Amino acid sequence: MGYEKKDRKNGEQDVRLSTEKTARPTVAAMEALLQQPFPVLDHGFIRVVDYMGDDTSIVQAARVSYGRGTKKKSEDAALIRYLMRHNHSTPFEMCEIKLHVKLPIFVARQWIRHRTANVNEYSARYSILDREFYIPSEEQVRTQSKSNRQGRAELFSAQDATYVINLLRKDAETAFEHYHLLLKTENTDNEQAERDGSGLSRELARITLPLSTYTQWYWKVDLHNLFNFLRLRADSHAQYEIRVYAEAILNIVCQWVPIAHKAFLEYRMNGTYLSASALNVVRKMLDGQAITQPESGLSSGEWRELMDVLALQSKS
Amino acid sequence: MGYEKKDRKNGEQDVRLSTEKTARPTVAAMEALLQQPFPVLDHGFIRVVDYMGDDTSIVQAARVSYGRGTKKKSEDAALIRYLMRHNHSTPFEMCEIKLHVKLPIFVARQWIRHRTANVNEYSARYSILDREFYIPSEEQVRTQSKSNRQGRAELFSAQDATYVINLLRKDAETAFEHYHLLLKTENTDNEQAERDGSGLSRELARITLPLSTYTQWYWKVDLHNLFNFLRLRADSHAQYEIRVYAEAILNIVCQWVPIAHKAFLEYRMNGTYLSASALNVVRKMLDGQAITQPESGLSSGEWRELMDVLALQSKS
Amino acid sequence: MGYEKKDRKNGEQDVRLSTEKTARPTVAAMEALLQQPFPVLDHGFIRVVDYMGDDTSIVQAARVSYGRGTKKKSEDAALIRYLMRHNHSTPFEMCEIKLHVKLPIFVARQWIRHRTANVNEYSARYSILDREFYIPSEEQVRTQSKSNRQGRAELFSAQDATYVINLLRKDAETAFEHYHLLLKTENTDNEQAERDGSGLSRELARITLPLSTYTQWYWKVDLHNLFNFLRLRADSHAQYEIRVYAEAILNIVCQWVPIAHKAFLEYRMNGTYLSASALNVVRKMLDGQAITQPESGLSSGEWRELMDVLALQSKS
Amino acid sequence: MGYEKKDRKNGEQDVRLSTEKTARPTVAAMEALLQQPFPVLDHGFIRVVDYMGDDTSIVQAARVSYGRGTKKKSEDAALIRYLMRHNHSTPFEMCEIKLHVKLPIFVARQWIRHRTANVNEYSARYSILDREFYIPSEEQVRTQSKSNRQGRAELFSAQDATYVINLLRKDAETAFEHYHLLLKTENTDNEQAERDGSGLSRELARITLPLSTYTQWYWKVDLHNLFNFLRLRADSHAQYEIRVYAEAILNIVCQWVPIAHKAFLEYRMNGTYLSASALNVVRKMLDGQAITQPESGLSSGEWRELMDVLALQSKS
Repeated sequence: MGYEKKDRKNGEQDVRLSTEKTARPTVAAMEALLQQPFPVLDHGFIRVVDYMGDDTSIVQAARVSYGRGTKKKSEDAALIRYLMRHNHSTPFEMCEIKLHVKLPIFVARQWIRHRTANVNEYSARYSILDREFYIPSEEQVRTQSKSNRQGRAELFSAQDATYVINLLRKDAETAFEHYHLLLKTENTDNEQAERDGSGLSRELARITLPLSTYTQWYWKVDLHNLFNFLRLRADSHAQYEIRVYAEAILNIVCQWVPIAHKAFLEYRMNGTYLSASALNVVRKMLDGQAITQPESGLSSGEWRELMDVLALQSKS
Repeated sequence: MGYEKKDRKNGEQDVRLSTEKTARPTVAAMEALLQQPFPVLDHGFIRVVDYMGDDTSIVQAARVSYGRGTKKKSEDAALIRYLMRHNHSTPFEMCEIKLHVKLPIFVARQWIRHRTANVNEYSARYSILDREFYIPSEEQVRTQSKSNRQGRAELFSAQDATYVINLLRKDAETAFEHYHLLLKTENTDNEQAERDGSGLSRELARITLPLSTYTQWYWKVDLHNLFNFLRLRADSHAQYEIRVYAEAILNIVCQWVPIAHKAFLEYRMNGTYLSASALNVVRKMLDGQAITQPESGLSSGEWRELMDVLALQSKS
Repeated sequence: MGYEKKDRKNGEQDVRLSTEKTARPTVAAMEALLQQPFPVLDHGFIRVVDYMGDDTSIVQAARVSYGRGTKKKSEDAALIRYLMRHNHSTPFEMCEIKLHVKLPIFVARQWIRHRTANVNEYSARYSILDREFYIPSEEQVRTQSKSNRQGRAELFSAQDATYVINLLRKDAETAFEHYHLLLKTENTDNEQAERDGSGLSRELARITLPLSTYTQWYWKVDLHNLFNFLRLRADSHAQYEIRVYAEAILNIVCQWVPIAHKAFLEYRMNGTYLSASALNVVRKMLDGQAITQPESGLSSGEWRELMDVLALQSKS
Repeated sequence: MGYEKKDRKNGEQDVRLSTEKTARPTVAAMEALLQQPFPVLDHGFIRVVDYMGDDTSIVQAARVSYGRGTKKKSEDAALIRYLMRHNHSTPFEMCEIKLHVKLPIFVARQWIRHRTANVNEYSARYSILDREFYIPSEEQVRTQSKSNRQGRAELFSAQDATYVINLLRKDAETAFEHYHLLLKTENTDNEQAERDGSGLSRELARITLPLSTYTQWYWKVDLHNLFNFLRLRADSHAQYEIRVYAEAILNIVCQWVPIAHKAFLEYRMNGTYLSASALNVVRKMLDGQAITQPESGLSSGEWRELMDVLALQSKS
């Protein structure tokens, strides 16, 4: 009923209210946010359904490898930093998280490219999709970047932005109207609609819906592969609409495994890789030698990036 | 140019015309079909870009495991059948195929769920999508199945089918018109269009396009995982639009590794799994005992399926 | 100290005694057995370190796919059976288990071939291995099977079995003696021994140890991939020494997800696959037609297996 | 016969002498080395069995993503460098290589931890292992490193090294003698030995063999995952005995995909990752500010490593 529909829309359908005693590693901060949907974009959300392990689980797994225990909290942190620094990834695989995510289909298509994860997605062959689609805010309506083939640049005027937004909304509304027309139901109640029959098969009617349509899934992943996802998708080059999901997850990870989260920022996210040639440039600079881009072995693009990351004025 | 566009549409952009000598396993039938696009649906295709190994490569890999050679062609076939029958899957992983596929996005979304494969997809963040979308033929315009929640049933009347088809086409055409409007280009030449600028970023403009829009990718997979894909997607329960791709691939596999293909049909595709209870029913029947569904431990659905597969009249 | 050594040997080093409240799915039977080592072989064990999800988690994941809820326990069981029967594997991937396993290296080498899992193994580059190795019981000392190239057959006489066992034990003891000699320590206390130094590097000294040496690891896997492992390794054709581990895990799974466990036995473990030709034979038999092996399209081996599985006398 | 045995030992059993015409991408340098065993360690080898793709295959896959062609060889190299630099890994997955490797079991156990690959290993359940085991050269007989828990340090005296080597050899010889005793065969011809029977089952007799025993396998992997393997195993911290295999493969890769190989060295192997704190140190140094380890946020170990990589004298 309206109840079920509301449930699915808000991601609350499976909330467990009861608590039990467990001898498993338990994180108080995660218990507090469990099942709670964090809104993302205009209709999306992220909700933690379950988690396995905590910072000490990483240490515990590393200990079986190294055959000895560490005794103090400070040693735990040092070990986790060591593991992250030296790309010893398997101990991080010993933590697992399960998320319920509602997201536009074009975001889902980028997300699914991360293969080492478990997914159960809403099936539009089985069920009718809710009339929900992503419409960007004015702030996101921007021109194609000329320097970055896959990025955004300038804001539109308020008038032009409104025009764009209205066009996107109208197209999506028309598509959903036709979707229901094809299904021969105007019933927005899923269960009711499914009984109507005589319309076009659901698996075919959906093909007229836009890529902005919302879908949802359960997504389960280990911490190592989650960090790989976050490094790419919380990056400034990621498309805005997936980046906001990555940032929401990063906040959750910070509460789940605070020590690993900090090590991730230090050794993966906020540092930089120097290529062999770039390393050579830095060495020469530190040695007081003058070096210019043409001598450096770097392309002009690489040189510019290096100067940026070293916070130096580009002199190319 | 018009040339480039036509190329991509027809999947011929990368054709190599020259041949070289190689000491690698080579399959004459595959050489004959290499690079040639096999049409699927209204605008899609499948094209073999490369392949590694043949039937003897499976035997060769099994031989390293079993530490001895087989001598005759007939022994090769027997060994391959043995491996397939006993789920010894690793020798089949020693063959690899790379396909160039053009397919509607809603098909791509089902396809990508097969995780153990390599994919490079056309990026609509980088480039403008061609004005190509899937429109079902009249034969495919069918009502929602009542017995199978994810299937199709009855044909529409010719008039109703035309109505559906026109609606789908008009929606897609409008979407593409608006897509170009947002990009501020009516230029259907990709390279030209990309220079226009000042329009909405490509990564955002695309969200108004329907799920019927064609995309394309390179897809590389080993034979074992390809068989898993085919078992599910060439099955009669798969959605028609992905099944025709699976059937086209099955034809290619038949030419590539004919012995493994035959074993696959025999031991995976055209046989059936009997559950413990179903096996018990069959044993009793063969023993001449009468048995009815309620006594069988099978649900009425399972009983019906079992009678179907045994080509018996259901008496439940 | 001796304490630490004992810990590792018995797999109790990481026991958490405290319990916390959690809103996550919790299985009372699993809480009862958590951390408790189940002995396997002469020195091995399996110990549940953590788990995620229960039977309802499978249902919950399927529900997001099918977009509707099921209401009753009996419906849950029917849905899980349906998923298992139709190879809808993704909902089973939503449950995860983490085991601490102590096992001989030759067993570990078979086990690790299951790639879709997370592993942290004890490193003999970092630490000194305990003087523990697998010696088969008399019951396991059997001749090479002639019919099955990878199996065992007849028992040895008590005298011969004792001879074999003594030989294996003496070789392993000598190897460990030499291992310590190379490391220049007779110190059986790991931490003490590691301080001795001046001996051969650990990573090299270990190469003289036999394949019967015990190692240990943390192994984390989802339920779908665990079922794949169990289907192969709890099978009667699996080597005895890995089969006993699989059977111990099967007992744990029975307590963890009893409904899925039962469906697994019914639809994976205790049923049988009929090839296309075998299915044809069964159909003819049920139709009252006489059919012999030469007419059947089955090899004599396949025919014999089919007669066995149908509990019929082989008449080939 | 002796023939077969020699074949397997030298890795030449499956050599194809004939060549065929192919329209697939072909690399002349690879054709020249195909099937040829490159010796590694005392009895091991690496042999290229098959390969798929070349440098242009990487470009071709990237082109489908970016929807445009590049025209010149120099542009190909620039694109490949760009892909490597920005961690766009999927185009590298479009190349595949299949190797036949003979290697000691303790090396195989490290190697197999790279999960995204296909493997068929010689089975000692099916067949009898050859009397071949790894004995280190004097140069490799070194003491345990005190600074690096998993490394080697000082050479032994010639006398002590000889003692170690003799001990390792004698243990392995005794183990193989007992192995044959248990199998009740002294027949070193595999096929003959297998007919002897009445001895202990092969799957059990092998457990007395040392970790230095040679095994062999077919290993198939895509270029992206091969680079991951090489980055870890060709690294100076890898155990010597696996590093020599990695170096042999690196030589092969250099001939197979020379442009990608060069980009790999530049952007993965010979560069360095600067953590957020290390980057900050470098920025300050370049800005002429004095900075010491305690102020840097780096541990003393990290500081030392940073000074080393920057080729500066450590002043901590």
